[in-house]
Amino acid sequence: MSNRHLFESLDGLVNKCLRGLIAYNPSLALDEANRVVYDTTYSKANVSIISGGGSGHEPAWSGYVGENLLAASVAGDIFASPSTKQILAAIDAVPSEKGTILVVTNYTGDCLHFGLANEKAVAKGHKCRMIICGDDVSVGRKGSLVGRRGLAGQLGVLKVMGGASGAGGTLDQVYDLGVAFSQQVVSIAATLDHCHVPGRAEHGALANDALEIGTGPHNEPGYWKLSPVPSPQDLVKQLLTYLLDENDAERGYVKFNDGDEVMLLVSNFGGMSHLEMGALSDELLEQLATNWKIDPVRVCSGFLETSLNAPAFSISVINVTTAARNCSYSAEEIKAFFDARTNTHWESMAGSRAQRRSRADQFVQLPQEPRVALDDGKDLKVDPVLLEQMLRGACQNLIEAESDLTRWDTEMGDGDCGETLKTGATCLIAALDSKHIADKGSVGTVLQELEEILEGKMGGTLGGILGIFFVSMRNALEDNVDLASSEGVPELWAKAVKIALDNLGRYTPAKVGDRTVMDTLIPFAEGLKTGNFEDGVKAAVKGAESTRTLKPKLGRATYVAAGEDASKGLPPDPGAWGAMVAIKGLQSGMS
Amino acid sequence: MSNRHLFESLDGLVNKCLRGLIAYNPSLALDEANRVVYDTTYSKANVSIISGGGSGHEPAWSGYVGENLLAASVAGDIFASPSTKQILAAIDAVPSEKGTILVVTNYTGDCLHFGLANEKAVAKGHKCRMIICGDDVSVGRKGSLVGRRGLAGQLGVLKVMGGASGAGGTLDQVYDLGVAFSQQVVSIAATLDHCHVPGRAEHGALANDALEIGTGPHNEPGYWKLSPVPSPQDLVKQLLTYLLDENDAERGYVKFNDGDEVMLLVSNFGGMSHLEMGALSDELLEQLATNWKIDPVRVCSGFLETSLNAPAFSISVINVTTAARNCSYSAEEIKAFFDARTNTHWESMAGSRAQRRSRADQFVQLPQEPRVALDDGKDLKVDPVLLEQMLRGACQNLIEAESDLTRWDTEMGDGDCGETLKTGATCLIAALDSKHIADKGSVGTVLQELEEILEGKMGGTLGGILGIFFVSMRNALEDNVDLASSEGVPELWAKAVKIALDNLGRYTPAKVGDRTVMDTLIPFAEGLKTGNFEDGVKAAVKGAESTRTLKPKLGRATYVAAGEDASKGLPPDPGAWGAMVAIKGLQSGMS
Repeated sequence: MSNRHLFESLDGLVNKCLRGLIAYNPSLALDEANRVVYDTTYSKANVSIISGGGSGHEPAWSGYVGENLLAASVAGDIFASPSTKQILAAIDAVPSEKGTILVVTNYTGDCLHFGLANEKAVAKGHKCRMIICGDDVSVGRKGSLVGRRGLAGQLGVLKVMGGASGAGGTLDQVYDLGVAFSQQVVSIAATLDHCHVPGRAEHGALANDALEIGTGPHNEPGYWKLSPVPSPQDLVKQLLTYLLDENDAERGYVKFNDGDEVMLLVSNFGGMSHLEMGALSDELLEQLATNWKIDPVRVCSGFLETSLNAPAFSISVINVTTAARNCSYSAEEIKAFFDARTNTHWESMAGSRAQRRSRADQFVQLPQEPRVALDDGKDLKVDPVLLEQMLRGACQNLIEAESDLTRWDTEMGDGDCGETLKTGATCLIAALDSKHIADKGSVGTVLQELEEILEGKMGGTLGGILGIFFVSMRNALEDNVDLASSEGVPELWAKAVKIALDNLGRYTPAKVGDRTVMDTLIPFAEGLKTGNFEDGVKAAVKGAESTRTLKPKLGRATYVAAGEDASKGLPPDPGAWGAMVAIKGLQSGMS
Repeated sequence: MSNRHLFESLDGLVNKCLRGLIAYNPSLALDEANRVVYDTTYSKANVSIISGGGSGHEPAWSGYVGENLLAASVAGDIFASPSTKQILAAIDAVPSEKGTILVVTNYTGDCLHFGLANEKAVAKGHKCRMIICGDDVSVGRKGSLVGRRGLAGQLGVLKVMGGASGAGGTLDQVYDLGVAFSQQVVSIAATLDHCHVPGRAEHGALANDALEIGTGPHNEPGYWKLSPVPSPQDLVKQLLTYLLDENDAERGYVKFNDGDEVMLLVSNFGGMSHLEMGALSDELLEQLATNWKIDPVRVCSGFLETSLNAPAFSISVINVTTAARNCSYSAEEIKAFFDARTNTHWESMAGSRAQRRSRADQFVQLPQEPRVALDDGKDLKVDPVLLEQMLRGACQNLIEAESDLTRWDTEMGDGDCGETLKTGATCLIAALDSKHIADKGSVGTVLQELEEILEGKMGGTLGGILGIFFVSMRNALEDNVDLASSEGVPELWAKAVKIALDNLGRYTPAKVGDRTVMDTLIPFAEGLKTGNFEDGVKAAVKGAESTRTLKPKLGRATYVAAGEDASKGLPPDPGAWGAMVAIKGLQSGMS
């Protein structure tokens, strides 16, 4: 894991973070001396829920202060409990007529400091209670005196308690819900690497081929060390087994029966990409359905509780049906509390309130719009044999040029030019072979096929430029097809290529001299004006060759070549070169 | 930057990610073939806003599909534009009676493919338009043919357009707002390191002492390379100057006049900790206020557009007043569009809808609850000189033991035990010196002071345990003060210590033999039962010594020592040892 930081020292960092974090919600207030964030619009008539713990877990817990969630949060130093004095300040900041509940994760320091604050608050006459959430299944029953460690399942507990409080629940109701819900959570974490705390010495980084399961959110070592790293499929299988296997004597904390309603929470510890977290959610949902017959009624994935920017995650599975049996609320009510709108960070996962549909219904196949039928009267018809030979000539040249183009593009661009053109050529040959698109000599049919190949198979800048070029050329040919009889086919082609290039100019600023495909296409169009294809080819070759002495002005190559002296000789522009070899291929097909 | 991944191959990863990402909102649908996510509850009566681009930028753009935001999104490969065919499928998925607007960031591939799709949609009869957002100020006017590069400011454009669409705006109104708003955004990015794409070869990592400004979201090199890395204050100063200096001929794209309403967007590229991002927001707000007289009317910080998990960020500043002048909506309306509720990832920053208060009002100082007055009739009074000598003896011993305790705790724990106890001792000496807390021989006064020191200055597990111990002891002394006259002061102390330990047992499972401070305190309490302090001290010393042969069962030391053989001899438990030397110090003060 990277040990790079913007803020290299912890000095003042926690307070500065809290000052910044609250900026998104102007109804929050921060007492800097006590690191207490509270909601100035909270209602005294509702149960006040307070949570907190060490810093470095943001958005936990200050990010969850707001309507239908926490009344206040209190933060310690990095990965260290706040002091009793700070917690008492939080309790005093949001007094409630119904009472106050402190909800913490099961770590010794937090249990003691929040516990002492709870004792002192009760002694002062507050109706104060405390819930300790332990959901980690990794350290089994025999392994620990203190019960299960607290992971991000606690945020689910806070969410339903906050919803119940907002709905006017009594102290007993909200407390009983919190206890019942927290007992129905099983969680486990997996870690690709530890995080690094700003200003501290080197951390114990994991080896590149190692992964740990059963880690905690403070760089605690994992309970299991896996090397080599398993596939994501195998990893998820193992994690779900630890969570859900009822026959595991050391674990099996929560039973899941057929028909029980289940929630799934996935927490990013801070450093996983959203891309991989999305894929992880899919794998979890697939395996839950296939191997465990579980189709969660709610799925939340996000930054529930982080460990700075550790590349790690936790999974929590919750049995809502059993939780409802052990408190005064129904499963429907608990789901409604879970869905209750807040104005906190929780809302990054707020889609749960939307219209409910099954997961299977979410996957659709949009109907393909049928290809628009060609207007036969506007279609340019040419000799089918000649057309096919020209197209195959162009394709052949592009396939042969691939390795040169790839080499040059790797040097100056993003390396995909040769493959992109080869893919297009291969697809076009396949269409000639299997769909016989040239058999009737219809230029419109060939261009439609070419457009589909470009749209579906060829990405990148070049695919886009050629796509606009060909659709514009087809339209221009249709609009001017009468020229073929009045002035001749070469004149029609010259005009169509010219119109297509002009239209392309609306989407790219590239001109001759900018070291792009236009260095071939523009001279080619100019050359065609004589009515002689040969002149177009000559101009195209000259244009492509000229790119060897041009500095790039557009695209990725501009960064790479910023310091290069063009006079020393660069490779030709691969886009320009590719267009040129295709044009030469057309010519070779004519002979 | 870490190149660790859960999914080591890109094969199928983008689709798998989309399948997982949509799970949070069951009203979304995914067309996997085209990587189109759309809102099945969207309204045909509103303008359909569509965005998209390469993958790897999640939650952009699938995470923004929903009510009052996008009707559909479309995703390409990692950092590559979707194809025209995919974009056409998105347009077809959410047809609108008012019309469709494609909104993309200014990259060549996106401009071309969305542009071609726009052309083809118009040709098919759709009322389709396109807006290209470029907000990056880093490449100056002279440096680029293609205009400003698109950064996360585009998400702000989408948000106000989505709000306007949801409010029933016409195609012209929503389009004009989008153009006007996008022209009033200035953005810039800074990068601590590049991100690594799963399955690709090594990336160009930055050196540890380097930082780049003017980077893009696809690992593009920065326009400025800074080494050594500037302080966060200097970096923010430089970034804001690039954004806001109207006299910069190459930049100065947007004017900000006194009284203009301004929005601030801060985007985490994926790998910055929330802790540092919070502190960054604070620094930005402080410098905007102090150096630029700007107090943003909206502040959003989050994962607007990521670059996988790059440790980098961008800042966007937007002039809402000028945007309002250039379209048909007022600044108040634009702010309301910005605040309009969605059910998308945007809501992680949803606090903007809360009651508005100034930033200064967010910082409060909670009143300190005054110390509860002692009930003089319940206070144990002892010889003031003896009390002071005993306390100073204990403090002196703790200060002298600090280096041993630190060494032992570094070996087995988290290293803070010695410092924590020394801090407490130093504070108590200061209170004896300056507040003369022992002058009246009031044990209650001393214990109250000790509780305050523990609550305010001593964190960690030990601080919590001792805090509960002392508050419980004070309560027990008060409740049983009559024993002092009926049975004697030693009997009262023995009872109070016993009660305090019993109460402590509600918060920690530690017993004798678990290698904690209880190995000293429990024998001490037992020894005191004889009424002879000497017996308590002897038992405490024996208990502390016994920890040399005990394996840890609680706390951090359990992990460290899991494989150690206790019989080989461990250092004593530093908590137990510290309590013992303090007790011996009390004794030495008696003599």
